[in-house]
Amino acid sequence: MPYFDAASSAPLHPVARQALLAALDEGWADPSRLYREGRRARLLLDAAREAAAEAVGCRPDELIFTPSGTRAVHLGVSGAASARRRAGRRVVVSAVEHSSVLHAADRFALTEVPVDRLGRVSAAAFAGALGPDSSGEGAALACLQSANHETGTEQPVAEVAGVCREAGVPLLVDAAQSLAWGPVDGGWSLLAGSAHKWGGPAGVGLLAVRKGVRFAPQEPADERESGRSAGFENLPAIVAAAASLRAVRAEAADEAAGLRALVDRIRTRLPELVPDVEVVGDPVRRLPHIVTFSCLYVDGETLLHELDRAGFSVSSGSSCTSSTLTPSHVLRAMGVLSEGNVRVSLPLGTAAADVDRFLAVLPDLVSAVRARIGAPAGPAAEPVAEEAAADAGEAGEALVLDTLGRRCPIPVIELAKLLPRVPVGTMITVLSDDEAARLDIPAWCEMRGQEYAGEHPAERGTAYLVRRVS
Amino acid sequence: MPYFDAASSAPLHPVARQALLAALDEGWADPSRLYREGRRARLLLDAAREAAAEAVGCRPDELIFTPSGTRAVHLGVSGAASARRRAGRRVVVSAVEHSSVLHAADRFALTEVPVDRLGRVSAAAFAGALGPDSSGEGAALACLQSANHETGTEQPVAEVAGVCREAGVPLLVDAAQSLAWGPVDGGWSLLAGSAHKWGGPAGVGLLAVRKGVRFAPQEPADERESGRSAGFENLPAIVAAAASLRAVRAEAADEAAGLRALVDRIRTRLPELVPDVEVVGDPVRRLPHIVTFSCLYVDGETLLHELDRAGFSVSSGSSCTSSTLTPSHVLRAMGVLSEGNVRVSLPLGTAAADVDRFLAVLPDLVSAVRARIGAPAGPAAEPVAEEAAADAGEAGEALVLDTLGRRCPIPVIELAKLLPRVPVGTMITVLSDDEAARLDIPAWCEMRGQEYAGEHPAERGTAYLVRRVS
Repeated sequence: MPYFDAASSAPLHPVARQALLAALDEGWADPSRLYREGRRARLLLDAAREAAAEAVGCRPDELIFTPSGTRAVHLGVSGAASARRRAGRRVVVSAVEHSSVLHAADRFALTEVPVDRLGRVSAAAFAGALGPDSSGEGAALACLQSANHETGTEQPVAEVAGVCREAGVPLLVDAAQSLAWGPVDGGWSLLAGSAHKWGGPAGVGLLAVRKGVRFAPQEPADERESGRSAGFENLPAIVAAAASLRAVRAEAADEAAGLRALVDRIRTRLPELVPDVEVVGDPVRRLPHIVTFSCLYVDGETLLHELDRAGFSVSSGSSCTSSTLTPSHVLRAMGVLSEGNVRVSLPLGTAAADVDRFLAVLPDLVSAVRARIGAPAGPAAEPVAEEAAADAGEAGEALVLDTLGRRCPIPVIELAKLLPRVPVGTMITVLSDDEAARLDIPAWCEMRGQEYAGEHPAERGTAYLVRRVS
Repeated sequence: MPYFDAASSAPLHPVARQALLAALDEGWADPSRLYREGRRARLLLDAAREAAAEAVGCRPDELIFTPSGTRAVHLGVSGAASARRRAGRRVVVSAVEHSSVLHAADRFALTEVPVDRLGRVSAAAFAGALGPDSSGEGAALACLQSANHETGTEQPVAEVAGVCREAGVPLLVDAAQSLAWGPVDGGWSLLAGSAHKWGGPAGVGLLAVRKGVRFAPQEPADERESGRSAGFENLPAIVAAAASLRAVRAEAADEAAGLRALVDRIRTRLPELVPDVEVVGDPVRRLPHIVTFSCLYVDGETLLHELDRAGFSVSSGSSCTSSTLTPSHVLRAMGVLSEGNVRVSLPLGTAAADVDRFLAVLPDLVSAVRARIGAPAGPAAEPVAEEAAADAGEAGEALVLDTLGRRCPIPVIELAKLLPRVPVGTMITVLSDDEAARLDIPAWCEMRGQEYAGEHPAERGTAYLVRRVS
């Protein structure tokens, strides 16, 4: 039963399991106590800190353990941004950061740097956001992920660290997705990571704060972890986390080559096997194990359910699979299709046969989901000849397609059915109150070579303007 | 090698270990995902929440898991006090709360309710602190531990919950030390606990917030744990924590009877075996497994070291064993001796033979430490006859004893040596810049029946006034 959602949580690495078992016996006492059980716990904690610091590329006294990657990000952002409040209140982030970064930055004044269609920021755009804004507000902190959690796209961290250094703004790198593969190069100031992403247990994150970086903890006072992360240390899990980080690093080069080839296979074969699929993210500068694609006219939740029944565990950034009914902010920032979205993230040691089986079952599953939802049969069927479109209106006439109350992917399906039936030149106004439409209608136009002419608020929902041009 | 510091961290319960191992295999995935590994993790999480809620005495949807007891307290205090900011900014706490409560409350306006010499608050004193203070500032929240972590003294939680209810102020109960023994009675509003105190693993706390209690999370937004505790759930550890809570509860009555008898033995035998020892805390209304005592003229750190060499792991509230050089705020609030302080907290299943051996080795260790530090030989040697005191001054004369720069227990030892050599009626001014003197000089006077006449700031340090009266 292949599990293809390692970017959410990786299965526990055998080394982590072993280390955890040993540390349960040796490391349950309070490491701040001076008796033998405490000293033993302290030795384990110190050794884990040294191993983790070596893997991160910092000094042991620059690294603390936190209860999760999310907490590492929260503590890092609030500590660093608060310490520089005089320099400004703004926190500059890429638009595709993990939600933990966005939510932490949102407590300050958030400035988002846009990304291109592959999900990458440019150092120039980042540099532009670091100076005082129009109201004179400076930047306290910049945040950039090493690589994206949905698409695997790698960010130009070293370059951005350079422009941050020039601007005198510290840079926090969220390295949650990449730390298994290697240290983050470049002159970052703070770095956050999460153990269960690299095969360590849950309950452990890490935060590195370089010497000389101003840092003002915002939590109630607590003597643990240099006063930067409150609460009794999760010691056996910390030991296991450090051990597994070291272990995955030892395997990283081999694993990366193998998984990269498997992901390349998916990236190449998918568009050949499934009609109307968009593979997103940077095809080259990316993590080895993640690939994300979206399927036109597909309800993401149904597809996930079908894949689960077929034995494949994957995740999705489609709006219909999220409790908020909004599509992934990553896909939105990239301006790519969100419907029928699937993220595949391969765990270490994934067998090629499992990937092949995935590629073998996916086409039929997508077809079945499309058929059930009444999607157009395929691009070949549309657009139909102009003369056959007479029933839908005259050339140049404006048409309104009311999809209010319908959820993704229905609005796009309705549009795809209507458009071939109207004359070239017709402007269709699609009314929708589904958040996904904002992303998927322009994406569909781009895929189909039709003109997307913008949106405006309507009496109910939003009006999206689409002109048939071919 | 007996470990007698269960109140710091209890060894992992065998049931916790077993449950952890099983959950490592079944519960590493993200419980918010809909595929089979996620559903399995969700089932484990739901079952753990139900078990923990049953043990706490609340509904499952009132209980969240946190990364530690400290975090449970921090989140509980900030969420509850912030939600009632309009009612007032003050957080009313007992003076002997755990430091996590005091530090969290300190972000608001802290009002401390004093305790008696046994370490107990009175409901009447608590009630008095709940109304508006002299500046009209109301109370947003009250906090009271179920039992003290240093002395084991139980607090009148049900009574205090009653006066809080009358005043319309929610009550947060820190139940970290007592949850192994049973649920907390009374109409509390919030309750915090810590798994590694009840034989669960590190990395798990719990926070219960009763329905209807206003609560405003102060952390960056996060969908985990009802939006009240950010970060990926520490699932295998949560499963183990819930399983061990259930297991220790099943053994609680038997264990309590056994440990209570052992602690009673310590409480009774110690003063017979060791001269000048003060056993503190409530002898009856107390947790079964904790006893704290202080030894006059003893350096706490040296005694702990000697006990460790003899195979006993205990902790201490003496100033010389803390990095801050201040004695435990609990002992200070109780007004009891802090020097040579030892806390014994017995883990489940402690053998009577180990306690007997502790009682057998302690007297000689204390004598040795006293001899090495040059302590007075014993109460029999002091005070000497008045005529022998002529060398030290005339009756009624004021004397200055300069102990500046000397640390606990030296100032008290110097005082004990000088006093018998001065005439009855003499006022001795002890100069000290050691924080422990503030506690230990009055405590010594009380133990010796001499008059403590107060303190005032001196050019350096503090002047403590002691009059020889017998």
